[in-house]
Amino acid sequence: MKTYNLIYDDYLNEIETAIKRFADGLDCKPDILRESLLYSLQAGGKRLRPVLMLAVADVLSVPHDKVINFALALELIHTYSLIHDDLPEMDNDDYRRGRLSNHKVYGCGNAVLAGDGLLNTAYSILFDMCAQGKEQIAAAKFICNCAGVYGMIAGQSADLLHENDKDFNSETLEFIYKNKTSKLITAAVVTPSIICGGKNYSELKSFGYNLGYLFQLTDDILDVEGNFEQMGKSIGKDKDEGKYTSIAVYGLEESKLQADLLTSACCKILEGLDGDVGFLKELVETVKTRIN
Amino acid sequence: MKTYNLIYDDYLNEIETAIKRFADGLDCKPDILRESLLYSLQAGGKRLRPVLMLAVADVLSVPHDKVINFALALELIHTYSLIHDDLPEMDNDDYRRGRLSNHKVYGCGNAVLAGDGLLNTAYSILFDMCAQGKEQIAAAKFICNCAGVYGMIAGQSADLLHENDKDFNSETLEFIYKNKTSKLITAAVVTPSIICGGKNYSELKSFGYNLGYLFQLTDDILDVEGNFEQMGKSIGKDKDEGKYTSIAVYGLEESKLQADLLTSACCKILEGLDGDVGFLKELVETVKTRIN
Repeated sequence: MKTYNLIYDDYLNEIETAIKRFADGLDCKPDILRESLLYSLQAGGKRLRPVLMLAVADVLSVPHDKVINFALALELIHTYSLIHDDLPEMDNDDYRRGRLSNHKVYGCGNAVLAGDGLLNTAYSILFDMCAQGKEQIAAAKFICNCAGVYGMIAGQSADLLHENDKDFNSETLEFIYKNKTSKLITAAVVTPSIICGGKNYSELKSFGYNLGYLFQLTDDILDVEGNFEQMGKSIGKDKDEGKYTSIAVYGLEESKLQADLLTSACCKILEGLDGDVGFLKELVETVKTRIN
Repeated sequence: MKTYNLIYDDYLNEIETAIKRFADGLDCKPDILRESLLYSLQAGGKRLRPVLMLAVADVLSVPHDKVINFALALELIHTYSLIHDDLPEMDNDDYRRGRLSNHKVYGCGNAVLAGDGLLNTAYSILFDMCAQGKEQIAAAKFICNCAGVYGMIAGQSADLLHENDKDFNSETLEFIYKNKTSKLITAAVVTPSIICGGKNYSELKSFGYNLGYLFQLTDDILDVEGNFEQMGKSIGKDKDEGKYTSIAVYGLEESKLQADLLTSACCKILEGLDGDVGFLKELVETVKTRIN
């Protein structure tokens, strides 16, 4: 039986192949536009969202070729959000995935356009998928809504709004995490369900929400306990920048306790599904105990 | 017979009604996200692209209810591009449509998100349209491509790249105008054709290209000869900011001559169409002689 790491690598290879094929086919001008897009897209990273999509597809017995373009589009959307998030006026991050962030290399104007370009291209891929049928249209629409003003962008906006907010509370925290992080992760795990007609739709939606929240909590914990080499981005800056995180709201120990509870909740949902959920359960554990 | 201005106002009312309906239905949080989106979207303006779409729909006998959501989505895309274009790292414009630009009111971070939000919402509207059939999917895809890295974003990127470029030439100018301005205008006039199965597709594509170029030329001329009150944005700043325009490449007189030629080309294409093109011909004349 394949180990968790080998399975993860298989998924990762499949995704990197799709990204490479996409990059090879991208011939937009001027060169700096293409280069700045691919600089961020090809920076590696865990590819958590597309890996999740392929893994859930396996649980539901959905062939990978039915979802791989959705996985690619989702990774483009995620990457666009990182580029815009890193801008000085937003989270102001100089490093991402272990190297200089997009605007530090190409300047802010080009970084704005690189983000816009990735977002647009993601939707171009999704419109192509729409031609295949109504499930594909529904999946594209679901991803779009998770990324949009009732999803990730709402979370980013609230995140920005509540910097240095002395009245920051658990409700605000939940709004931000639910939207900024959980929505795209939910899109990843729900897409294969929509493609196959809605199997385990609500369970997967709930799983995505909990896993996204867990991911964000561990991000907060790592911002306190992690280090730059492992994380590939600046550490300890949440507090420096007046960002309230779960650590500020609940404290470190309570946050770790919540992470445990969310891990259990995720695993319980997975156990209620029909297919082989072994890999996904290990993935949840790995998110909880991750060091980067 | 209705005068040109009355017909324009009818189209405009229809579009403003669609925008108002959209705004009334938009209930995203936090409030600043909704407010900043609508600040730019509801700033008025000529609504040239949606007006063009409705006018071409009339020429092709396509009912307005078949295209109004495409027109709305296109105006959202246009508005997003203005917000991002006005950012300090891009065109750095403090005024737009006669009032402070988005980032001057809400800050750069929120302006980036307002633009992202409008773009995403435009695609959400288009995914809804996709459920209606393959023509709608094709039209959505066409609009997306016109807006993307082989269209408007390519033009914006080249525009940014060639600021203060001593080797700026007519080829670069054409690349920028063709992509930055003409592509979305082409999307406006081609969409009704795609919706009705491709009637006059190539003529309208060519018309859009020429009209977009004409619009950009007159923009350059107005940057020299216009004034702030009429234009609602800063004047004379192209040169101040190291932007090369058709005035720098060809001179004012030659640019005006080109505007005449493009006007003739547009009218000639229109005369080759079947329906009543009276309004569109006047619109072309108005673009040429416009003062704002």
